[in-house]
Amino acid sequence: MLTDMHVVIIGGDARQLEIIRKLSQLDANVSLVGFDQLDDGFAGAKKQSIQAIDPLTVDAVVLPVSGMNAKGEIESIFSADPVKLTSEWLGRTKKTATLYSGISTQTLRSLLEKSNRPFVEVFSRDDVAIYNSIPTAEGTIMMVIQHTDITIHSSEIMILGFGRVGMTAARTFSLLGAKVKVAAQETELLARAYEMGLEPVKLNDLHKHAGGVDVIINTIPAKVLTAAVIAKMQPHALIVDLASKPGGTDFQFAEKRGIKALLAPGLPGIVAPKTAGRIIANVLATLLTEQWEKRKGGAS
Amino acid sequence: MLTDMHVVIIGGDARQLEIIRKLSQLDANVSLVGFDQLDDGFAGAKKQSIQAIDPLTVDAVVLPVSGMNAKGEIESIFSADPVKLTSEWLGRTKKTATLYSGISTQTLRSLLEKSNRPFVEVFSRDDVAIYNSIPTAEGTIMMVIQHTDITIHSSEIMILGFGRVGMTAARTFSLLGAKVKVAAQETELLARAYEMGLEPVKLNDLHKHAGGVDVIINTIPAKVLTAAVIAKMQPHALIVDLASKPGGTDFQFAEKRGIKALLAPGLPGIVAPKTAGRIIANVLATLLTEQWEKRKGGAS
Repeated sequence: MLTDMHVVIIGGDARQLEIIRKLSQLDANVSLVGFDQLDDGFAGAKKQSIQAIDPLTVDAVVLPVSGMNAKGEIESIFSADPVKLTSEWLGRTKKTATLYSGISTQTLRSLLEKSNRPFVEVFSRDDVAIYNSIPTAEGTIMMVIQHTDITIHSSEIMILGFGRVGMTAARTFSLLGAKVKVAAQETELLARAYEMGLEPVKLNDLHKHAGGVDVIINTIPAKVLTAAVIAKMQPHALIVDLASKPGGTDFQFAEKRGIKALLAPGLPGIVAPKTAGRIIANVLATLLTEQWEKRKGGAS
Repeated sequence: MLTDMHVVIIGGDARQLEIIRKLSQLDANVSLVGFDQLDDGFAGAKKQSIQAIDPLTVDAVVLPVSGMNAKGEIESIFSADPVKLTSEWLGRTKKTATLYSGISTQTLRSLLEKSNRPFVEVFSRDDVAIYNSIPTAEGTIMMVIQHTDITIHSSEIMILGFGRVGMTAARTFSLLGAKVKVAAQETELLARAYEMGLEPVKLNDLHKHAGGVDVIINTIPAKVLTAAVIAKMQPHALIVDLASKPGGTDFQFAEKRGIKALLAPGLPGIVAPKTAGRIIANVLATLLTEQWEKRKGGAS
């Protein structure tokens, strides 16, 4: 339980509601900043402006997935105005007050440097990335069904990268009856793909295999789908690029060749906001509980 | 091979192109009626009006999936005008000339009574229904991803019916990580569901299980999702009804209760027209080959 722990949740989207619900269940003392248009009531959660909160009482600050934008603002779909979090305010919290954010941004890093508070980048954690790979794979399935005129079953699908997202996508498409090839650099990943009954392809040999596939799904955040590779693809083939912006595809060349190429980051929040919110809520609950028990166990 | 077999293909949609391609590969002599706006050329296929074809030369007539409408017309997306097929014309073909149609309609049956020619209803065949269940299941996956805010993975899904479509849907959703219940009447189907690791539910007990599920997928062409069952469902639950029109759901009551219920017949032609066309083309090729070899072997 998080009884008496003061958590400030600032901004966000529908996913934040699952976090508020979870922390409210755990009996935390929750301040909601940037939620003035939120209708639902949660036990133990209070809407407040950041000015009305005494920083000295704060144990944790939770930012949304997107963190903080370049202007130092935190966006909220529950408020007309974004929230401004300053290093002065954060610097006046307890020394143990921890900042949690989905991703880290340049402005967030410079804020943390000035205020010197512990920081957790939730989305860089392996467990979160693996849980999130489930809605990502489902969103990819949806896009492939929408943008091809053949079934996934019996189609030839190549997955680039065999990390946290690549493995989920490869396994899922294979279960749906697709013939799945996995392209990766690391020999141990190629061995794992082989063990799973998938066809391993050396990343350097990508151009030799591009001609036979119906769909290429990229998860590698580097320019791997070059013009040389795309030139070998069939005209009806589809590219879905899951790597973070700007993706790993030469989109300009794909368009010139008439090959449909879609950049699709952030699928969990789009196709399954409730599940995506629960994933973050569960991990945050564990992290906050650890933080709270350490404080109660230690001196502080 | 179908060398010298004269097949008349009348009307249809994109799926017919796969049939034309296949029969052209098999060296049949193909007449295309109602394809005047078709640009692609196929070897051995000739665009003709029905009046220009001598019925005496015809070995087979292929209608589209939808068969013949109530006005006795055959619709075509490749022509501004539908084609009229009369019992007089059909009655002047060879006695062995066989009519193939996706589904049978009232007007088609009365035409066949008058002309007395062999008839095959392609979509009533078990093999076609099972092949078609693949794109149907994929279309259902797409709809469930689009219309819920949770992942299929870990959700509670109930499939009503465990026939040609129900079994495919149950297996596929289970592979994606859903907890799948199967409701059916027949004890042997419930036994098969159990063997496959799914949870069997007696159809009469449906109302007892409706409260716990996130998605109900119906494949039974009878009023099974009654007001009494829908009243037990959670407000966020989704119904996808795959049974032919009018479906098995009390849609009016679902709307009143605020439960989203979607009637989704004909998914193969929508989500995977190319695969759906190939399914029909492959089965037709087998049927026409059997017919042609019987004729060549026999007296005729």
